[in-house]
Amino acid sequence: MIAISNVSSVPRSLPTASVARLPRYLRYLDQVAGSIDVVSSEEIADGSGVSAVQVRKDLSFLGASGTRGVGYDVATLAERIAKALGVLTQHGVAIVGAGNLGTALANYQGFASRGFDMVAIYDVSKRSVGKKIGDLAIRHFDQFPEDAAEFGISIGMIATPAEAARDVAMVMIETGIRAILNFAPVEIPLVDGVTVRRVDLATELQILSYHLAQS
Amino acid sequence: MIAISNVSSVPRSLPTASVARLPRYLRYLDQVAGSIDVVSSEEIADGSGVSAVQVRKDLSFLGASGTRGVGYDVATLAERIAKALGVLTQHGVAIVGAGNLGTALANYQGFASRGFDMVAIYDVSKRSVGKKIGDLAIRHFDQFPEDAAEFGISIGMIATPAEAARDVAMVMIETGIRAILNFAPVEIPLVDGVTVRRVDLATELQILSYHLAQS
Repeated sequence: MIAISNVSSVPRSLPTASVARLPRYLRYLDQVAGSIDVVSSEEIADGSGVSAVQVRKDLSFLGASGTRGVGYDVATLAERIAKALGVLTQHGVAIVGAGNLGTALANYQGFASRGFDMVAIYDVSKRSVGKKIGDLAIRHFDQFPEDAAEFGISIGMIATPAEAARDVAMVMIETGIRAILNFAPVEIPLVDGVTVRRVDLATELQILSYHLAQS
Repeated sequence: MIAISNVSSVPRSLPTASVARLPRYLRYLDQVAGSIDVVSSEEIADGSGVSAVQVRKDLSFLGASGTRGVGYDVATLAERIAKALGVLTQHGVAIVGAGNLGTALANYQGFASRGFDMVAIYDVSKRSVGKKIGDLAIRHFDQFPEDAAEFGISIGMIATPAEAARDVAMVMIETGIRAILNFAPVEIPLVDGVTVRRVDLATELQILSYHLAQS
């Protein structure tokens, strides 16, 4: 489901599984930031559904060590995680495919507060192009290459039918996009320096099915 | 993002990360099943974006060992993986929330071929209930508890707004559902014997952001 092509070449890289847990810690810290100043690894663990040992290990990778018997300073830790995740920088996100899924993504609450700015949505159908989703008018995908720099698109989301997804990815990659989130049920070929994550719903269901079969 | 509460209690359990890779191998095997009879671990690796060492390790957990210098029998291996994933059994899936996301899920191609049968979709809005999505008429969520046994619902998908998600999950769990796929941006409390997987789009973007920041 997850294809990350540039892990081996990144400096001071965290284990992939640790990276995947950082957003959960950050979400917990943001929730409690208004009410408490210091948290223990056990509290972070409870709030994010991870074991306390794992929390301490992941945070030590970031160079964050809590004070024994006291814990971690909430604001400092949140900033350190946000910095590691690169979410202090605003990222422009474009969606390609303005069907139900693309529309759901465009309306998804909680991107903006995390440093993600939904800047454009594309389709190729005459019926869709020009229509509005929230504040964004759907644009023709032919405009993507010239829009990318102007709109500051750094992350592309693919919400097209399976048969269009690879071509869309190739256009994104040729345009210089280095981060792609793919919802279409097809693999995007690995390209050096481009990170592709796939959200594969059938895979998620099969993983659930495994646990149903075991229990 | 992933909260699995019953891993420690399952018999002969695979590592969680191995379980998550099995659907990719199965997808590859299904693709090639018509054209070749035997595959090497390298071919499976190429086709599923995983290293060959990892493929061999994962498959050995299933008790599948290839013939040295030849490889794995495609049909036998596919069946063994499908059996481990429990997808030889048909699972009834219900979606709660018939907005854009729920509609996209209901229309998602590729569930049925994998042993998942979309049996019902629910909402609470008067405007939605009774409308059709494909062959399914949207039902009121109040009917969920009595529908569950009759329709054979074993997996629940939550595609509601964040504020409704926990209540929906509680109704599902009280009804006896033991596998939930949650798309709402909120954590579902862990309940013993219930597997919840969360598809969190903001988390996916943050992971992409990390790789952008590093490269």
